[in-house]
Parts: sequence; C-alpha cells; structure tokens
Amino acid sequence: MHILILGAAGMLGRKLAERLARDVTLGGRTVDRLTLVDVVKPTVPAGFAGLCECLAVDLASEGAASGLATRRPELIFHLAAIVSGEAEADLEIGYRVNLDGTRALLDAIRIEGGSGWRPRVVFSSSNAVYGGTVPDVIDDTFVVTPQTSYGTQKAMGEQLLADYSRRGILDGIGLRLPTICVRPGKPNRAASSFFSGIIREPLAGQEAILPVADTLRHWFTSPRSAIGFLIHAATLDLARLGDRPNLNMPGLSATVAEQIEALRRVAGDKAVALIRSEPDPAVERIVSGWARAFDPARARALGFTAETRFDDIIRAHVEDELGGTIA
Amino acid sequence: MHILILGAAGMLGRKLAERLARDVTLGGRTVDRLTLVDVVKPTVPAGFAGLCECLAVDLASEGAASGLATRRPELIFHLAAIVSGEAEADLEIGYRVNLDGTRALLDAIRIEGGSGWRPRVVFSSSNAVYGGTVPDVIDDTFVVTPQTSYGTQKAMGEQLLADYSRRGILDGIGLRLPTICVRPGKPNRAASSFFSGIIREPLAGQEAILPVADTLRHWFTSPRSAIGFLIHAATLDLARLGDRPNLNMPGLSATVAEQIEALRRVAGDKAVALIRSEPDPAVERIVSGWARAFDPARARALGFTAETRFDDIIRAHVEDELGGTIA
Repeated sequence: MHILILGAAGMLGRKLAERLARDVTLGGRTVDRLTLVDVVKPTVPAGFAGLCECLAVDLASEGAASGLATRRPELIFHLAAIVSGEAEADLEIGYRVNLDGTRALLDAIRIEGGSGWRPRVVFSSSNAVYGGTVPDVIDDTFVVTPQTSYGTQKAMGEQLLADYSRRGILDGIGLRLPTICVRPGKPNRAASSFFSGIIREPLAGQEAILPVADTLRHWFTSPRSAIGFLIHAATLDLARLGDRPNLNMPGLSATVAEQIEALRRVAGDKAVALIRSEPDPAVERIVSGWARAFDPARARALGFTAETRFDDIIRAHVEDELGGTIA
Repeated sequence: MHILILGAAGMLGRKLAERLARDVTLGGRTVDRLTLVDVVKPTVPAGFAGLCECLAVDLASEGAASGLATRRPELIFHLAAIVSGEAEADLEIGYRVNLDGTRALLDAIRIEGGSGWRPRVVFSSSNAVYGGTVPDVIDDTFVVTPQTSYGTQKAMGEQLLADYSRRGILDGIGLRLPTICVRPGKPNRAASSFFSGIIREPLAGQEAILPVADTLRHWFTSPRSAIGFLIHAATLDLARLGDRPNLNMPGLSATVAEQIEALRRVAGDKAVALIRSEPDPAVERIVSGWARAFDPARARALGFTAETRFDDIIRAHVEDELGGTIA
C-alpha cells in the first residue's frame, strides 16, 4: 500500500508517519511505500522497512500537485496548511496554501485519475470552520460560519472535497479536528498555540503566557487521539458518510481554568505557578469567535473516539513526549 | 452614484438595470452612472439619463476584474454565473466562472481599495447551496451541504464574501435566491429551467416538457421579487447582518402539482393540457437533492418580502412579460 502524506514535516504528519511505520499494516494491508511531502523535506520515520521518498514541495506551485499525482498513491493524508495566526496576518499566503494548495491537489487527482485510480483523501479540517454566534454545544447540522481566514479556507476546502467526492473523482473524508492539546515542541503561529503552552511549558519547568481570560471555553483533543482519527478515517467504510463527507471530530470541552486545575492535579501547584497572565487582544479576538463544545454524534456513531477528561490529555503528553516523567 | 452590474446581460441583470433606470434614485441618491458587464455586451437600459458603459468582459480572465475595480463603483451587483446544468456538465468552466470569477472580483477590490473605497457587493447566491439530507423546512442555522458543483461554487463564493467583509475589504451581502419562476424568455441550461417552462410555455400557447414527477416540492420566487431583494440589499443597514452576511431569501414552497393547479386557476385547462410529462433522470437526480422549503426568519426580519401564493407568481409574469394578457 502506497501512502502520501502532505504536511509530513508538521507535528501531526510526523506522528502519523511514525505510527504507520510502527503499525506496519493499515486495514490489514502492508504499508510498503510512503511519500512524505512538506515545504521542508520530511524525515524517514524510524524503523520503516518499505520504500520512503521524502520531498520538499510547495503544493500550490505550478505542476507540484500533478507531479505527486503521477505517483498514484492509494491513500493521501492532506494535512498541509498555514496555521490560523499566520493566515490571519497574511491573507495572500493563507489563501494560496490552504485553498489553492488543496484545489491543486484535488485537480491533479482529477486529471491523473479516471483509469482505475481513485485515491482516498483524508483532509484535516478544523473546528475553526465554526465561529461567531454559535450555540454552547454545536451539533452536526449547524451552519458553518468561520470568523477567521483560516477557518474560511478550511470550509472552502471541505466544500471542494465534498464536490470532488460526489463526482467520483476521489474518496474524500474531512475531519474537523479539535484544537490539538498538548502540542509538543515550540509555540507556533496558530492563535490557539497558548492552549498547549500553558500545559507544556510548566510540565517542562518553564514559564508560560496565558493571553486570554481563564473563563474561555474551548474544544480539545490530544495528538494521540488526532492520529487515531486519521487512521480510523483511512479505513472507514466511506459509504457510511452519506452525502456529508466532512465530520466534526469528538473532543473534550474545557475552560482554561479547568485546563489549569487538571494541570494542578497531574503536576502540582509549582507547575501552575509558572503560568503568567498577559492578555493579548489580537488572540482574544480570534479565539473568542471559536466554538466551545460539540455534540459530534455522527463521528461517534462512526467509531471515532477521544479523551473525556483533561487529566488524560495531560497524561498522554507526559507518556508520549516526556517519557512518563515531569520536570 | 456609480453602480456596477456583473452579469448585466442575464435575465436578472437586465431587469435590475431597467429598474435602476426607471427608479432614477437608489436609497435617496441619484444613480448617475452604470457600468454594465457580461461575457456578451449588455445593452443600455431604456430611458437611463446618466453615463452608461457597457462592456463585454470575462471576469475570470487575467486583469479583467482589476480593470473594473479601477472604476471604483460604490455598489456592485455580482450576478454573473454559469448555471447549474452547465456547471454540472463542465467542471472546469463552472469553477472558473463561479469561483475564480468571484475571487478575482473580491481580490481586485482588495488590491484597488484601502484609500477610502470600500464598495458594497451584493452577491447572488442560491438555495442550491443546500442539498442532500435536509429537513422539510430549512432554517437559517442549518448546515450548507450542496449536492451540485454549482451549489458548491456558490457556497465557496459566500465564504469568500463573508471573509473579505469581515476583514473590512468590502461590505458584502449574499442572497440565496429561490428558484426564479417564471423566468421570461427561452429555457436555459439550469436544471431548474423546467419549473418556469411548465408555466411560461402554456401561457404562450406552447407545449412544455415536465422532466420530473409532479410530487416534487421546491422553493420559488418571481423575477419581480428577486429584483426587490437586490434593491433592498443595496440599501439595507449591513450592521444588522452581524457575523453572517449570507441570507436565505423569502420564497414560496410549492409542488409541481400545485404549480400546475395555480396555472389552471389563472389560465384554464387548455393551458394545463400543454404540459407533457417526459421524465429525465439527469434532471431528476440534480433537483431531487435540492431544498423544498425554508423558514427565512432573518431575511424577513430584515425586510425582504416575496409572494405567498403561486397564483401571484404567475400573475406577476402575465403583467410584467405578457402585457397583462394570456395567449
């Protein structure tokens, strides 16, 4: 089985490639070929025994997507994106990467396909497609009205994916990922970056900045669960999606204060003392328009699962990233 | 006041230009300049006393939109589109005109604007953004899941319009028009064309083809009401739209059988006898995925109004197109 990962140098892309290398098989078939693509050259996952090609490619550049399509991977994970903060700061780069890149991929499949090649495309969308006036709990039939350019671009990508799937060009499934927490590594330019920072930095004995009020409620899942969603989407019977291939993923609704109390239970007062409040109106403005909680009934019925307690999200980080120990 | 109409050679565009010429003013201001654009050169509306420039322009072609933006119209009606049947038959032309054309317009405004020019953009979207598994009556918060490429392209245009409005690049309002009935003139390549044909042709003493079962329910408004929506949208206080500039327009829900009974009341059995049933699976497939009825509470609260009886829709056609008499 040949799998292409776009955005393979990103946090989720790396973890996904590592998981595939570790699992060896996917849906009962051997993963014998990986094509890993990002704007910076991804690395071969440790222990992968098959053929692995790592490419530095700008998906939106002329001919890039068609070059990938000629390789005819059976499964494509499209995780490549400019994050929310950067897409908000730079309209052009956001639309170029998040919309034009996605469209280039889908069109390359359209043009290359048709003679027995119809790949599955697992698209990472985001709960950021929702925003503005939303109910406390968003159900699966609520209207998508993003309040950021990032959310807009993801919503447009979802529409394209649905149309190209409906036309039989590809087998698409879009996953509206909750905010990933705890993201390992360094802060990024996503406006949601602090949700991880206030857990990750204190667990490593470092100070973290909280740019919003602790009453802010948001929707989370761990990197471990997010990888689980992608793997599940790769093997799910897509006929079960009916005419709506874009799905709200399960997650956990918590306020910042609840995040902090979970941190206190897992790592004690000294970790919590490292969080410093420093309001940032630009971040407040973006995240205040985001969804706070979901009832992802369709995804749950389709077998997608996630953590139900924030303590478990923190423990997943300690186990997966810190070797089980706290600084 | 300088007004640009894109799609000015189309049915709505022509009627809109004629209405503006007749009214002379809009929102208390004199309409002293019209720029009328379409892929074929539009005509100057009868009696218009101001400056009227008629241009044959392909909006999606290189530099076309920016050429129009340099004219800095205060109000833009963007009605230009490839219709549903053609967009379904030809993926490339549909995306080029309906998505790329809209994006080119919005980007041209972004690049030209910023020094005191922020035009109002009234965008004609469509109830075709809804589809698939929908409730009998769709409310204003129901999810948009189009089941045609046309509906997809309109939904994507709406998202762009909302994002560019939110950013302050333009003042956008998107109107999801019901199926316009009775469309004057000849059948077009819209899959919805027969909804008008089965009224229009018999009123003119000609045979009409009905390609679907008469139990099909659909959502209608007259050309007269549609022009009323556009005019109302041009002067409405847009602050009242909040964070959702795209609106379901009012209309009238009727089955094909109810359309036919209204025709019988207005024009008698001899008109109804001219309708010939000839099922067309391609048309059935497209229109069966469309919405059947709406509760457009937001639009009604904002002052948009439409007919409430199908007889009135037929009478509007007889008055506006047939000089008040039936063949």
